[in-house]
Amino acid sequence: MNAMYSTDANTQRHEPRDTASAPFTSRHIGPRPADAEHMLSVLGFDSLADLVDAAVPADIRQDTPLDLPPALTEAAVLEDLRAIANRNIVKTQMIGQGFFDTVTPPVVLRKVLENPAWYTAYTPYQPEISQGRLEALLNFQTMVSDLTGLEIANASMLDEASAAAEAVLLMHRANKKSARTASGGITLLDADLYPQTRAVIQGRASALGLDVRTADLAAGLPAELAADLDEKGLCGIVLQQPGDSGRVQDHTAVIAQAKERGALVTVAADLLSLALITPPGEQGADIAVGNTQRFGVPLFFGGPHAAYMAVPKGLERQLPGRLVGVSQDAAGRPAYRLALQTREQHIRREKATSNICTAQALLAITASMFAVYHGPEGVTAIAEHAHRQATRLAAALEAAGFTLTQDAFFDTVQVSVPGLARTVVTAAEAAGVNLRLVDAGTVGISCDETTTDEDLVAVLSAFGAPRESLPGRIGGPEATGDAGPSASARIPATQRRSSAFMTHPVFNTYKSETQMLRYLKRLSGYDLALDRTMIPLGSCTMKLNATAEMESISWPEFCSIHPFAPDHQTEGWRFLLGDLEEKLAEITGYAAVSIQPNAGSQGEYAGLLAIRRFHLDHGEGERDVCLIPASAHGTNAASAVLAGLKVVVVATAPDGTIDSDDLTAKIEANAGKVAAIMITYPSTHGVYDADVREVCRKVHEAGGQVYIDGANLNALVGLAQPGKFGGDVSHLNLHKTFCIPHGGGGPGVGPVAVAEHLKPYLPSAERPITSAPYGSAGVMPISWAYLYLMGAEGLTDATRHALLNANYVAKRLGEKFPILYTGETGLVAHECILDLRELTARSGVTAEDVCKRLIDYGFHAPTLAFPVAGTLMMEPTESEDLAEIDRFIDAMIAIHAEMEATTPETLGASVLRNAPHPAEVLTADEWDRRYPRSQAAYPVDSLRRDKYFPPVGRIDGAWGDRNLFCSCPPIESFEN
Amino acid sequence: MNAMYSTDANTQRHEPRDTASAPFTSRHIGPRPADAEHMLSVLGFDSLADLVDAAVPADIRQDTPLDLPPALTEAAVLEDLRAIANRNIVKTQMIGQGFFDTVTPPVVLRKVLENPAWYTAYTPYQPEISQGRLEALLNFQTMVSDLTGLEIANASMLDEASAAAEAVLLMHRANKKSARTASGGITLLDADLYPQTRAVIQGRASALGLDVRTADLAAGLPAELAADLDEKGLCGIVLQQPGDSGRVQDHTAVIAQAKERGALVTVAADLLSLALITPPGEQGADIAVGNTQRFGVPLFFGGPHAAYMAVPKGLERQLPGRLVGVSQDAAGRPAYRLALQTREQHIRREKATSNICTAQALLAITASMFAVYHGPEGVTAIAEHAHRQATRLAAALEAAGFTLTQDAFFDTVQVSVPGLARTVVTAAEAAGVNLRLVDAGTVGISCDETTTDEDLVAVLSAFGAPRESLPGRIGGPEATGDAGPSASARIPATQRRSSAFMTHPVFNTYKSETQMLRYLKRLSGYDLALDRTMIPLGSCTMKLNATAEMESISWPEFCSIHPFAPDHQTEGWRFLLGDLEEKLAEITGYAAVSIQPNAGSQGEYAGLLAIRRFHLDHGEGERDVCLIPASAHGTNAASAVLAGLKVVVVATAPDGTIDSDDLTAKIEANAGKVAAIMITYPSTHGVYDADVREVCRKVHEAGGQVYIDGANLNALVGLAQPGKFGGDVSHLNLHKTFCIPHGGGGPGVGPVAVAEHLKPYLPSAERPITSAPYGSAGVMPISWAYLYLMGAEGLTDATRHALLNANYVAKRLGEKFPILYTGETGLVAHECILDLRELTARSGVTAEDVCKRLIDYGFHAPTLAFPVAGTLMMEPTESEDLAEIDRFIDAMIAIHAEMEATTPETLGASVLRNAPHPAEVLTADEWDRRYPRSQAAYPVDSLRRDKYFPPVGRIDGAWGDRNLFCSCPPIESFEN
Repeated sequence: MNAMYSTDANTQRHEPRDTASAPFTSRHIGPRPADAEHMLSVLGFDSLADLVDAAVPADIRQDTPLDLPPALTEAAVLEDLRAIANRNIVKTQMIGQGFFDTVTPPVVLRKVLENPAWYTAYTPYQPEISQGRLEALLNFQTMVSDLTGLEIANASMLDEASAAAEAVLLMHRANKKSARTASGGITLLDADLYPQTRAVIQGRASALGLDVRTADLAAGLPAELAADLDEKGLCGIVLQQPGDSGRVQDHTAVIAQAKERGALVTVAADLLSLALITPPGEQGADIAVGNTQRFGVPLFFGGPHAAYMAVPKGLERQLPGRLVGVSQDAAGRPAYRLALQTREQHIRREKATSNICTAQALLAITASMFAVYHGPEGVTAIAEHAHRQATRLAAALEAAGFTLTQDAFFDTVQVSVPGLARTVVTAAEAAGVNLRLVDAGTVGISCDETTTDEDLVAVLSAFGAPRESLPGRIGGPEATGDAGPSASARIPATQRRSSAFMTHPVFNTYKSETQMLRYLKRLSGYDLALDRTMIPLGSCTMKLNATAEMESISWPEFCSIHPFAPDHQTEGWRFLLGDLEEKLAEITGYAAVSIQPNAGSQGEYAGLLAIRRFHLDHGEGERDVCLIPASAHGTNAASAVLAGLKVVVVATAPDGTIDSDDLTAKIEANAGKVAAIMITYPSTHGVYDADVREVCRKVHEAGGQVYIDGANLNALVGLAQPGKFGGDVSHLNLHKTFCIPHGGGGPGVGPVAVAEHLKPYLPSAERPITSAPYGSAGVMPISWAYLYLMGAEGLTDATRHALLNANYVAKRLGEKFPILYTGETGLVAHECILDLRELTARSGVTAEDVCKRLIDYGFHAPTLAFPVAGTLMMEPTESEDLAEIDRFIDAMIAIHAEMEATTPETLGASVLRNAPHPAEVLTADEWDRRYPRSQAAYPVDSLRRDKYFPPVGRIDGAWGDRNLFCSCPPIESFEN
Repeated sequence: MNAMYSTDANTQRHEPRDTASAPFTSRHIGPRPADAEHMLSVLGFDSLADLVDAAVPADIRQDTPLDLPPALTEAAVLEDLRAIANRNIVKTQMIGQGFFDTVTPPVVLRKVLENPAWYTAYTPYQPEISQGRLEALLNFQTMVSDLTGLEIANASMLDEASAAAEAVLLMHRANKKSARTASGGITLLDADLYPQTRAVIQGRASALGLDVRTADLAAGLPAELAADLDEKGLCGIVLQQPGDSGRVQDHTAVIAQAKERGALVTVAADLLSLALITPPGEQGADIAVGNTQRFGVPLFFGGPHAAYMAVPKGLERQLPGRLVGVSQDAAGRPAYRLALQTREQHIRREKATSNICTAQALLAITASMFAVYHGPEGVTAIAEHAHRQATRLAAALEAAGFTLTQDAFFDTVQVSVPGLARTVVTAAEAAGVNLRLVDAGTVGISCDETTTDEDLVAVLSAFGAPRESLPGRIGGPEATGDAGPSASARIPATQRRSSAFMTHPVFNTYKSETQMLRYLKRLSGYDLALDRTMIPLGSCTMKLNATAEMESISWPEFCSIHPFAPDHQTEGWRFLLGDLEEKLAEITGYAAVSIQPNAGSQGEYAGLLAIRRFHLDHGEGERDVCLIPASAHGTNAASAVLAGLKVVVVATAPDGTIDSDDLTAKIEANAGKVAAIMITYPSTHGVYDADVREVCRKVHEAGGQVYIDGANLNALVGLAQPGKFGGDVSHLNLHKTFCIPHGGGGPGVGPVAVAEHLKPYLPSAERPITSAPYGSAGVMPISWAYLYLMGAEGLTDATRHALLNANYVAKRLGEKFPILYTGETGLVAHECILDLRELTARSGVTAEDVCKRLIDYGFHAPTLAFPVAGTLMMEPTESEDLAEIDRFIDAMIAIHAEMEATTPETLGASVLRNAPHPAEVLTADEWDRRYPRSQAAYPVDSLRRDKYFPPVGRIDGAWGDRNLFCSCPPIESFEN
């Protein structure tokens, strides 16, 4: 457990409570007892215990049950959560520092953040069933691009600080020209960056040995650095607008100076301020990054929030993260899909631009809908309000004799109160307002969308200033124009924005709540999410995201807390997070857990960094080799590189396990240099390799550490603990095993778990890898609730049923599609790989064709071509019931028959290659296909009662990459 | 304002708060200012004010603006509601008396009660777009029918007490045989009915002069009544199971006695208890009524809840309310629709079986989904839990020396504590539990699904009994079987249920949350609600139900309050309700309002009863004639009859107004006997009749009162006040003008507003017309929020835009379809009637064909054939935006062209008569229609981006009435 938490266990009642309701376990787990019996008989086992014993190697099994409380009812857990929430204190949040209060429009809260149609969706890798969320993300990109004045924005970043760090890496990659030294030249961070941004960049840079320094760039590049810059070159600079101090700065001069030296320029910009201030793109910046939280996303005690990154044309192939682009479908209809995927980590592995593989889709969609609803006028009015309130407050404080540290500002005012800052902050808190304690003599005050005159009066009272000093009529409606100074009073004329933004119709159409409601409904109607169908994605664990788990995240006592609020206001939060870390440590068998990493990739990075730092602290800096099996997820390799490690690939044996001889050979070849091995368990082949202890032993003997990727933890919980069978570090995926919804591509949460000797190297508030000390705190109540709803036995039972469901699928589908790998007993773990290669060779039908044809059957596709090309990996999870699993199996068997009836000659005209079939195609007056409409639309009868029609046909991704367009397309393109 | 409320105005802040957000008014009202300008120019007006001046007769206009607070933001109103909610105190509710705590399954709460797809739906009069909610209501009927042991259950009643009153009327209607006197024989109410049930029945009976008496029927028909029964006949008896005292009684003997006398028998039964107790149908009862609240519907401070009524075959045509039945569509697919509609009030008028025209659909759906999710085993387990807890408590109290008033009980124990009842109740409250103060010497305790051992210990402590007296291990899980007495300990063996119930697969399939989520999604996907499309129903005012209005209804501080909780626990509720009544009085111009009536029909009844009682109190009992215009809604006449009035119809003049000469003639013909006139304003013809003051004057001069039906109040708010231009009484429809959602056919709320002289006759806690003193309190925060969000000016602006939208439609569509009636200036009010009769005569295409064809265009139909056969009445409301209105107009114009192209000869094969077109039809391999598929599916291009396919084709209602089937059909019927 992390020292930064208070853990008053009194909050909870761990006594089992009698209840009349069915246990939650029976709501979470799909198969009924009778179903399970049937499935076991198909598999030839007498009991679930027998199946588990046969599947999981005995030598890794844990011998005692999990030491977790017994299951509680939904009502009891909600009651406990309410008690925990009530230990947080909600104040008016005027701390700023990258986090600002905002109003989530109620219709967006209810219909996006609280709507399974949006939050249970998967990442839009299958674009035909994702047009709704792709449009929403395209709106996000357009909003960011417009506001920053840069052509290409991606579909979100994890948080502002890590986005800034990614920008530094991007500058480094892109700007090889100016790299005069091995370190790639100097990168300068302006002194006026948020402290958390600076800390995260420095952490990333030091792992890679980059020369990153902080300097005051307000007056241009410092003369005293000229010699260094001449010698080593200037790779890039990072500025912030407005600065940490609140200052609004004209950056054009320093940008020009940097560019003269061939450097690239990143500006971390507050997106709302750009409604009033000249955008970075117009000041010459190459990269803009920042947070979109204040576009309607709750504070969430620090996250999850969607950060952003935008670049001009020419840098798009260097952009990390996901990028939505416009392409067209088989009939030439405009259609959206992820663009330029070949640059992403899962394809480029250690050559990737970044290790990021999650975005913050749900939060990006929320922010984009805030922009759609408010439109350019509304966003401008909100920015003007924040600015006007700050301006009036500044005037009042100046009138009362106080000195501000900056003349030009947007929404944040810093005040000099030598020696008295703490007194003022304390007085403000007593008056109901949190201010920022910048240092002993400086107080920061940030205004926002919600700042009322009453709030300003409370602030003034904390300074001992009279309410009468506030210009304008107190409480006067702004519309009357008597509320004080004009909207751009403290923004210098030269820095006021003059260009238009968000001019696309999407930002100017849905203005009434009815319109917005229908727009959101229409978009979600285009998509398949868990609320309609199984999403059988291997290694993604698309299980139930239960309502009782989700409910509390929008309670004000959780979501309206600022990440830098004083500890005594956040007791509930810190108890919950500490308790969650403790429970996760128990489940994984490790000594400690940090929940800070806000994605699996961040957890990997944090874990590998811990290993790297451990070796450095033990004088073994030469240990910089990370062994990674060939079958590993690409992110593993990318993360290793980011942690400063060199990747050495270990071969796969024919049976799918790690090639033991090759492992020995690679260890010997790198004697004394092995930092770690990074394995996934069960393996990415969906199998419990029997020799995992042996693999760990070898690496430990070679002086290396063992990193066990927790992506497949859903096959282990309650049965085996990676921290006990050989792991030194693991990261978990709360959005897989622990029920945080995928949100259409984020939020993800990737806690990192370590053995005792690595505890000092965990991320923390002092050594952060994200903007907020607790990462994506806001969604943690979901996993916390899951653990308490299930209890020790329920969690273990979930794992058992995950094995049962996967083995049932493998058994039944194995008759048609060979299961690529199984364990020594012929069983798989929680997923299985269907090998289509022989069938493909014979028929021409590809695994992708099968994925697209499954859409006609109403299913989301399994995982395509990972970890082996030409295959499909399928994970049913414990939450799918027998009927749904059988429906999937029936669909696959029907598709198998369709494949058998196809030859390379008939392929082009086949129902498979022409899948999926939108309603518009199926109802066309003309029909010249070689197959009847009924076969296309209703290949199995049950579809006649429940049919999903994709809004577009198969999408031509390559066309879109050749004709890259990543903003909302003109309306005319949809005309027939 | 009603005296029973506290109104501490401190709760609210009426200061306008400055804000950055767009005002809510602009979210509620559809047309943007520029749109409104365009629409005005089409109408030939310079301003909205000019349009209003031209449309609304000057002599009724109010001369001062509404005295209401200015508009607040959504955040501010939610903050105020939070403060009000916090003035309610949530205790463990063990009062019983018809209201019991329950757990709404979270997935049902989020996906039904909080889901616009369910709550914004209209009554399923258009069955093709309502298959989802019809299936849900059929589940409800099946659940009720199974549990009561009676073949036919309706789709819900308003509340238990009024359902019991309806049962008394049903017995009276059906049992003419035994009616030996003018009063129709004696009806006996058992003394062990809930007091509120008895009070409501007596009120209804006395208005009609029925001979209804209370007697102790525990030992059979009382001997002392034999002579009376011999002389006057026994019409019916009403029993309760379990009784008000908690007693479980074998009713077979008294039922047999009653039947010997030719009487009918009603049993008011707790539905949950029937999982354990022999159902009324098996004891010989003819009618069962009761509440389904404890099937997952929150207490809601008394309502809305779905009551039920079930009867055996043979009585179905006497059943009040709505009945869902199974029929088939054009292709022979099973399809649901409302059955036997010809018996309903809107067709039978004063001969109707009842005046009810709303049900409690949303709550019935919630209760049915509780049953679907828990299934028969789960419902039985819940009933057993309640019974076991009551049994254990009883044992503990007896062990401590207390005497129970009953030996046999289900969940409710009454304890004799002579002189000490108040002391015990007070002590229990201090321990966190509300008990029932039955009388000075009796305390009642009701257990339920949520009752924990801790609750029982708290109760025992209030009695001074030790916790050790509780049998079984405290807090022990029930599954271990050590929790005390067996589940049927206090239910006599002869009265234990042995028959199975809820055996249909629908109650035995959706057991995991994932399955339930998908089932709810699939059903809602079948339906069109406001979240997808305009619902242009005349006189139904389907406007925005804003999220901010809806949010608070599921807050525990509002929804977990028992209607009979002590006043000091309900300050927030009583403030909100009193304030709402005050504001509604201001809007309507009346002296006082009662929000008790839980449907428009109940408001009508209450208002007419007030008039009737006023006349009686003034010695004018002979005034029993109610004048009703021929165009009135059928409910008007039915309500008048129920209030003991005779209906005299006044003719309609050719211009749609009341025929002035006929009015004079009818007044003269009924000189001295005119009790009232009941008019609707604006009239049901959608017009502001210019002579309304004259009509009122005439009736007043004749000594009558003026009842102005508030159905069309959406055309008046802020412009004119019925209480000021002639009305003595009005009822409002909060589910029309004041934003309570229609819920797929309820809840409705019908407050009654009266002038000063009628105040003493308002419904109240002492003179109730519903089970709960505050009616459907639970949904009132919706209307309250609406009033504060809009403010005086916003409300008035909404009315203006309602006029604008309707007149724009009338102007544009009038070119194709004659507008049947307009006011003297050629304008309509907030709706308009499209006259199709000439077109129908020419083409054969009926108004119904047009309604069905509109489904293909993605629209819900307008009101069909009311108030004039062969017409469509259309009301856009202020919430629809110009684009949606134009989309509707375009659809109607396209349909007009289709009509023009049709002749009686081609009608049968036309796209109109064959509408609507399900996807299955449109994608069929064979197509032998005379029109192309594209014309059927995509008659306008915009449908290609956003298309709704009905799940079934046109439904044959008559077939279903001939083959009446009102439970879930066997699964086999869906096989092809």
